[in-house]
Amino acid sequence: MDKKHLHNLLSAVRSGSVSVAEAVRRLQHLDYEDLGFAKVDHHRALRQGFPEVIFCPGKTTEQIVSIAERLAQNETTVFATRASAEVFAALQAALPRVEYYELPRAVVINRDHSLPGAGRVLVVSAGTADLAVAEEAALTAELMGSRVERLYDVGVAGVHRLLANQAMLQAANVLVVVAGMEGALASVVGGLVDKPVIAVPTSVGYGASFGGLAALLGMLNSCASGVSVVNIDNGFGGGYTAALINRLAAAKEE
Amino acid sequence: MDKKHLHNLLSAVRSGSVSVAEAVRRLQHLDYEDLGFAKVDHHRALRQGFPEVIFCPGKTTEQIVSIAERLAQNETTVFATRASAEVFAALQAALPRVEYYELPRAVVINRDHSLPGAGRVLVVSAGTADLAVAEEAALTAELMGSRVERLYDVGVAGVHRLLANQAMLQAANVLVVVAGMEGALASVVGGLVDKPVIAVPTSVGYGASFGGLAALLGMLNSCASGVSVVNIDNGFGGGYTAALINRLAAAKEE
Amino acid sequence: MDKKHLHNLLSAVRSGSVSVAEAVRRLQHLDYEDLGFAKVDHHRALRQGFPEVIFCPGKTTEQIVSIAERLAQNETTVFATRASAEVFAALQAALPRVEYYELPRAVVINRDHSLPGAGRVLVVSAGTADLAVAEEAALTAELMGSRVERLYDVGVAGVHRLLANQAMLQAANVLVVVAGMEGALASVVGGLVDKPVIAVPTSVGYGASFGGLAALLGMLNSCASGVSVVNIDNGFGGGYTAALINRLAAAKEE
Amino acid sequence: MDKKHLHNLLSAVRSGSVSVAEAVRRLQHLDYEDLGFAKVDHHRALRQGFPEVIFCPGKTTEQIVSIAERLAQNETTVFATRASAEVFAALQAALPRVEYYELPRAVVINRDHSLPGAGRVLVVSAGTADLAVAEEAALTAELMGSRVERLYDVGVAGVHRLLANQAMLQAANVLVVVAGMEGALASVVGGLVDKPVIAVPTSVGYGASFGGLAALLGMLNSCASGVSVVNIDNGFGGGYTAALINRLAAAKEE
Amino acid sequence: MDKKHLHNLLSAVRSGSVSVAEAVRRLQHLDYEDLGFAKVDHHRALRQGFPEVIFCPGKTTEQIVSIAERLAQNETTVFATRASAEVFAALQAALPRVEYYELPRAVVINRDHSLPGAGRVLVVSAGTADLAVAEEAALTAELMGSRVERLYDVGVAGVHRLLANQAMLQAANVLVVVAGMEGALASVVGGLVDKPVIAVPTSVGYGASFGGLAALLGMLNSCASGVSVVNIDNGFGGGYTAALINRLAAAKEE
Amino acid sequence: MDKKHLHNLLSAVRSGSVSVAEAVRRLQHLDYEDLGFAKVDHHRALRQGFPEVIFCPGKTTEQIVSIAERLAQNETTVFATRASAEVFAALQAALPRVEYYELPRAVVINRDHSLPGAGRVLVVSAGTADLAVAEEAALTAELMGSRVERLYDVGVAGVHRLLANQAMLQAANVLVVVAGMEGALASVVGGLVDKPVIAVPTSVGYGASFGGLAALLGMLNSCASGVSVVNIDNGFGGGYTAALINRLAAAKEE
Amino acid sequence: MDKKHLHNLLSAVRSGSVSVAEAVRRLQHLDYEDLGFAKVDHHRALRQGFPEVIFCPGKTTEQIVSIAERLAQNETTVFATRASAEVFAALQAALPRVEYYELPRAVVINRDHSLPGAGRVLVVSAGTADLAVAEEAALTAELMGSRVERLYDVGVAGVHRLLANQAMLQAANVLVVVAGMEGALASVVGGLVDKPVIAVPTSVGYGASFGGLAALLGMLNSCASGVSVVNIDNGFGGGYTAALINRLAAAKEE
Amino acid sequence: MDKKHLHNLLSAVRSGSVSVAEAVRRLQHLDYEDLGFAKVDHHRALRQGFPEVIFCPGKTTEQIVSIAERLAQNETTVFATRASAEVFAALQAALPRVEYYELPRAVVINRDHSLPGAGRVLVVSAGTADLAVAEEAALTAELMGSRVERLYDVGVAGVHRLLANQAMLQAANVLVVVAGMEGALASVVGGLVDKPVIAVPTSVGYGASFGGLAALLGMLNSCASGVSVVNIDNGFGGGYTAALINRLAAAKEE
Repeated sequence: MDKKHLHNLLSAVRSGSVSVAEAVRRLQHLDYEDLGFAKVDHHRALRQGFPEVIFCPGKTTEQIVSIAERLAQNETTVFATRASAEVFAALQAALPRVEYYELPRAVVINRDHSLPGAGRVLVVSAGTADLAVAEEAALTAELMGSRVERLYDVGVAGVHRLLANQAMLQAANVLVVVAGMEGALASVVGGLVDKPVIAVPTSVGYGASFGGLAALLGMLNSCASGVSVVNIDNGFGGGYTAALINRLAAAKEE
Repeated sequence: MDKKHLHNLLSAVRSGSVSVAEAVRRLQHLDYEDLGFAKVDHHRALRQGFPEVIFCPGKTTEQIVSIAERLAQNETTVFATRASAEVFAALQAALPRVEYYELPRAVVINRDHSLPGAGRVLVVSAGTADLAVAEEAALTAELMGSRVERLYDVGVAGVHRLLANQAMLQAANVLVVVAGMEGALASVVGGLVDKPVIAVPTSVGYGASFGGLAALLGMLNSCASGVSVVNIDNGFGGGYTAALINRLAAAKEE
Repeated sequence: MDKKHLHNLLSAVRSGSVSVAEAVRRLQHLDYEDLGFAKVDHHRALRQGFPEVIFCPGKTTEQIVSIAERLAQNETTVFATRASAEVFAALQAALPRVEYYELPRAVVINRDHSLPGAGRVLVVSAGTADLAVAEEAALTAELMGSRVERLYDVGVAGVHRLLANQAMLQAANVLVVVAGMEGALASVVGGLVDKPVIAVPTSVGYGASFGGLAALLGMLNSCASGVSVVNIDNGFGGGYTAALINRLAAAKEE
Repeated sequence: MDKKHLHNLLSAVRSGSVSVAEAVRRLQHLDYEDLGFAKVDHHRALRQGFPEVIFCPGKTTEQIVSIAERLAQNETTVFATRASAEVFAALQAALPRVEYYELPRAVVINRDHSLPGAGRVLVVSAGTADLAVAEEAALTAELMGSRVERLYDVGVAGVHRLLANQAMLQAANVLVVVAGMEGALASVVGGLVDKPVIAVPTSVGYGASFGGLAALLGMLNSCASGVSVVNIDNGFGGGYTAALINRLAAAKEE
Repeated sequence: MDKKHLHNLLSAVRSGSVSVAEAVRRLQHLDYEDLGFAKVDHHRALRQGFPEVIFCPGKTTEQIVSIAERLAQNETTVFATRASAEVFAALQAALPRVEYYELPRAVVINRDHSLPGAGRVLVVSAGTADLAVAEEAALTAELMGSRVERLYDVGVAGVHRLLANQAMLQAANVLVVVAGMEGALASVVGGLVDKPVIAVPTSVGYGASFGGLAALLGMLNSCASGVSVVNIDNGFGGGYTAALINRLAAAKEE
Repeated sequence: MDKKHLHNLLSAVRSGSVSVAEAVRRLQHLDYEDLGFAKVDHHRALRQGFPEVIFCPGKTTEQIVSIAERLAQNETTVFATRASAEVFAALQAALPRVEYYELPRAVVINRDHSLPGAGRVLVVSAGTADLAVAEEAALTAELMGSRVERLYDVGVAGVHRLLANQAMLQAANVLVVVAGMEGALASVVGGLVDKPVIAVPTSVGYGASFGGLAALLGMLNSCASGVSVVNIDNGFGGGYTAALINRLAAAKEE
Repeated sequence: MDKKHLHNLLSAVRSGSVSVAEAVRRLQHLDYEDLGFAKVDHHRALRQGFPEVIFCPGKTTEQIVSIAERLAQNETTVFATRASAEVFAALQAALPRVEYYELPRAVVINRDHSLPGAGRVLVVSAGTADLAVAEEAALTAELMGSRVERLYDVGVAGVHRLLANQAMLQAANVLVVVAGMEGALASVVGGLVDKPVIAVPTSVGYGASFGGLAALLGMLNSCASGVSVVNIDNGFGGGYTAALINRLAAAKEE
Repeated sequence: MDKKHLHNLLSAVRSGSVSVAEAVRRLQHLDYEDLGFAKVDHHRALRQGFPEVIFCPGKTTEQIVSIAERLAQNETTVFATRASAEVFAALQAALPRVEYYELPRAVVINRDHSLPGAGRVLVVSAGTADLAVAEEAALTAELMGSRVERLYDVGVAGVHRLLANQAMLQAANVLVVVAGMEGALASVVGGLVDKPVIAVPTSVGYGASFGGLAALLGMLNSCASGVSVVNIDNGFGGGYTAALINRLAAAKEE
């Protein structure tokens, strides 16, 4: 449900042509659009503060374009993650204001570049190979209204690189720590700050990393408190959670 | 480092008998007390906003008592998790103001019961067997200054029990969702709120739950955004992270 | 053994040219056709109510065509799952009345489109990426004579989409729930209905979904009763089991 | 919600003192009793055709007794699984008509022994060590109104024992196959019948059975169609699902 | 060490120019040819009754040709498994009497087709997709001098196909059972015969077969005695072990 | 079916009072005794050359005694594995000629100590902690009529202990290699002999041995040919398979 | 082989009564003492520089005492790891000069306390619960002649505790890093020094630590170079390897 | 930081233009170069005795070239592992003195070929398919200044090949053992020498080797002492650790 529909509905409530109970019901549970293969959740922006995001793998290009078209009505920002170049091309052909972010392989439609970021999210990454995931986290948090800073390639094999940037660590409301291999960076950062740390294990590594399992287990068993973990390579989830937390803090700073 | 030592140090800085550089160095990195078998991290309260917590398993009762005695100096609150009744008895014999919380098997020394909780953390649990973990989360958040509400036994096999309590869900700054078996509660709650959800998988279950693995994987793969996960049965970690987040929000509400 | 052979055999029994014992033996255990690389189980249609199905992976196109030719004798319906376009082309060249179902990648030969479906099977899926598996389930149940309804893209991250369709859930004799990621949909559906739920985990997901393992474990540990599970991505098995159950119920409705 | 409350409510609807909409709402979603540590789901009997079952592990004896007392009001049948002798003793002390089933370690309160079982569920087990799980399945199905037959110790290492009982296999509406070790019995039975088979892997075995994992994987990968699987040692789940299916068939037979 | 060298050495022993002790030492431990990247074990034919076999994966085509050339001296039979068409072409270009077996992707050089097979090895397979592995087993046993019979596509979903061929089962000295998915065929065969069964799990399957793990675990946990297991897809190992066993029996029959 | 019954049946065939077809049917498939909780497989001795063996774990003492009593009729040898001292005491009280083998925790009833062992089975073990499993293998093979030799504590960390006993290795018809930890002994032995090697991984070890998984995987991946594997700690299975093989060879030696 | 036997043998060589070849043979491969259940490897002290060590689990107390008696002849130091108090008592009763080390549960017989340690091994541990493993490592290295220093409770959640002790880190020839949970300490230490680091994962932790698997995988995937890993809880192996390395360095310092 | 910069800094300290404290700070923690996507750790050569190594997978060719350019300043040796031919070509175009090592797929820039290797590292490999990993280990150790010898294709299936080369084993200061499949070579070598063994499991194998897991577990559970393990296929890590150890020994030999 976009804002215009919401406005109309509430006006109808005020005028009495729609009862309060009916309006509550429609706003809480019922508003989605049925495309057959998908039920587009227009209500999500109201319910959760951010529109439905299109996770591209497993969907056909046609399905992605259809969903994007519905979501893009009324200039809402649309976010499609793990989009191939082919998907980007198809979206660009179908819609205006489509941007591609190559490193995180993300498409954004109707991005509002004038939005000033609020609060402060810090995305920290262990190695250069973790950048795609880190950038997905950063972009997600930015689209949700967060000011984002980046501190990259500070893996614990050279811990002085991290310690030299303690000021950045201390200044953030929330930190997203992105690391593959053994994922130890989350524990070291978690021990240095008094803010929540969202740890994102990556599949960077080989052999007994088992596709990111080693980093995942390492982060779940972190000896530092205040570290919680999202799925392997889930930069989107890390950025999303961080932005939710940052919103709580950002208001405080104003 | 307790407050008195901190006060003395800063006075020495003001009077010039200790240099600023020296004071910075001591405050940032160096202050711990060496018991041989343990290095008590007195600095943690300053660095992370909560004193070192004693995780009891694997430590002898004598070691636990020694560490608690050092931490309890100057009436700091001391928190020992997964403490057996025997550990409780030994602590009670050695120190005043020792309380035992039976369900989460936790000992608290010098708890300040006059502290009004700030903000709002909601601890949600799926089943009665998850209560020990849920209570560990709730107690942890309370000790860190959070107001905590509890919504227990609302597993998704009877989803009406959850939906009937939506007001509680919406009122919280952050939610801790505790569930074993398939852990689906985290996804359903995550889809209903626009606040961060800390998911705590429990080892409740049998067979293919593999000691909590099923719930852990379920929560990591949650289709709802904004869900991050801590270790299996880690009520402490869930409560700790929630309290960190709630602090950010609590200030805003004042 | 097709019906004509069966008719001839039984006539021979009545006339005394074949003993009862011999007829029993042949009907129960012995009737298959040996192609060397395969023993085509003609008896299955009598024994289990549906002819042998060709699972294509690991078989050469030549083998598939040979088996299909034997099964297609006497206009029996032939069903080949996970068939590539190349396999379809080869079958179409060799046999009449060959249809391809692109989404589930299935070939059906001699489908009887006039068959009215009986009873009611509901196939529910969590996300758009689960459609291929869901459609395999639906097609299988239809070929076995079930009336099938579909309710797609009702994952628990927006549980209102599911709750808005409760009438469909309640009307089914049996439900097939298809979901990847954490697979929580099976538990929520299982808690809402009093009919058997066949859960089909899919490999949709990434990272700690471990190719569908997370959904599989989640479904096996469902806190809802009445949920049983088939292999990852096994839409065929889900539809087959549902159709067997639906047959029992369908007769009752007549 | 017990029957008396239901009767009163419906009378109020008829008299107009409660609206239809209100009644629908209360019957569908809202009726549970809050004990603090548990939300007793009285509505389940209406919604799912069988009252909430008490899974004992992880609950204190006091909690189990409390829940049982609420459920036992108005002579509803109460079923507690995996109950220790101590739990049985406490229930017996608190309530009348409490029976203990030693092999499956189950407690039943207010069992209606006059209930004639309908339809036919066959519980098949591979070895003597699988009996506890098999009996849990049988008891569950009986409590839900099914007629249950048992065929025990017919593992595939002596397949003649199974083949000699084919008549029993063919007579059932639905079969529960209970097996540990490699769990092959499910496939062999599944290939002989045209009815749904609910496979229950057990933890019987050692070494590379990995607590039932081998049997679980074997059953999930069954080459026979129509086999679906529940959790390891989940006799309750197997019997529950079978009874749901049998109900559909039983009506037909009348 | 080929036969000519062996003959010369033994002649030298007889003539006294080489001591018995020296000859023993050289025959037992020391004879291999060093190619730098490989140490060709010429002694293996004497020590183990069959020449070194070339497992192709991970070796360059050049390395394979070099090793084959050394082994092929003096018309010894050379066996290369899992050979690509490219490897076959290179071997054919370099050496005479090179044959390719397409199904098991094996190359044999200098095969003695006049060799009459002794004893009886029966290779049994569950499905058509298992044929490549089954044929590797059969070819291996044949090259080692065994008479081999084949019984294919007798999976337990249609157990009558197996029971109809009991005479073949009983006639063998040793059986190789090749099966993917749940691998139940090994248990059923193992329960019918009183001869050793070598079980070969295959990677045929999908989802929770986890690349053959389900079949492997099933076979290791077989409730039938006398079943031992080799690696997943290891047709060579199954055939090799069977041939060793058959040798013991074959002599007896003469 | 014991011998007397068999004799009577065959006499009836000769006299014509039982048809040949009937006799075939009864001898092949039908003869077992139904105790309710168990179907005692009297036919196994005829079908597989060794009576049914009682695997004790998971059976009650009463069940074990009942089964043993039936099997012990007519002085057949009865073999119960993994029997506790309590089980032994109960068997001793109920039956004559009961012996306990403490190391492998096995009970044998009616053992024929005059039986001379035929052929030669060699049981090799890596360490002292593997002895219980090794002795179970040796006892099993002896009960099945094999002459058994033992070579213990020859793990590869001191490979000279193995090499010094090469004569024993070479003299055996078949070898059972019992090893925990990394299980490397199977590969080294397998490379030294030209006879089949049955590898028995044990759960001896800790940490990353994961209950014998490391040894199991090591043995399955053995670079030596002719090695096949049974379940972890399955000394019985190893000895049984070896005895089957040895029978084939033993006859030849006569 | 103890020193006296060695002396006698070499004297015999010098006098010509034993040939050089014979002496070489006996010294390299053949010298062990056969106790039936064990082959005591007297040669190990010569071959590997340290006598055979008794790993107690899985051995009976009688076996341990027997082995210790043989090894203790001629006042050789005997080392028994993971010894229970009962084993200690039995050894003390049988032999003189028996010491018990309670924390690592180790028994040492004939320890030479006058031995000055050479070189420098540093044992670093993450938490107090890791002490038993750390002390086993330290004791092992000491018995092998190393000077050992200890730096305990310096886990990365308070990295300042580690950094404050950099001088100790830099002074060691080789470091043993003992850590449970996520095992991140190995990576941080490995990044700070230019000496080999032997990482010993411990089973300290819970939930997704899976008995030390998380720490093990973390250490194997360490982003720091120069880190190698031994088995979970294998303090003995860590200390042994460190002592071997330290020997190489120690000689250099003289 | 290269040597020239270091010299200048220390001169400035001597002259007083830079304080001692400042110099300490810069040398210990702060010296790296920030490329945005990477923080090049120039300090590593001083801190750890070898410059940062470029692990290529997951980095773009552009990133690799940029990092190599910074590291190559002042003629430092640059080492890039797992480099594709494309990466090599790009590096060759950008920089002088670039060499490619095809087997281990490594690029070295500015290699000092005049460097005489010191000490002795022996790289032992089990099979021809392990050569790429073995050569990566050998090259790494050579670049770090070690003299390296190679002993290839001495897997335990023909243990005489290994025993025939015992002199090479005994002559090394440290051994790197590279093996796939069951990885037993590490145990056998470890039992023959009194020097540290670095075991490198490889992914050579199939089926239940699970990508090298079998070899990894085998090596971690080695019954030989003095064996430590690095990640699967981590030839670099094995060679690096061996070179660190060899340095300690090499000095001693001078």
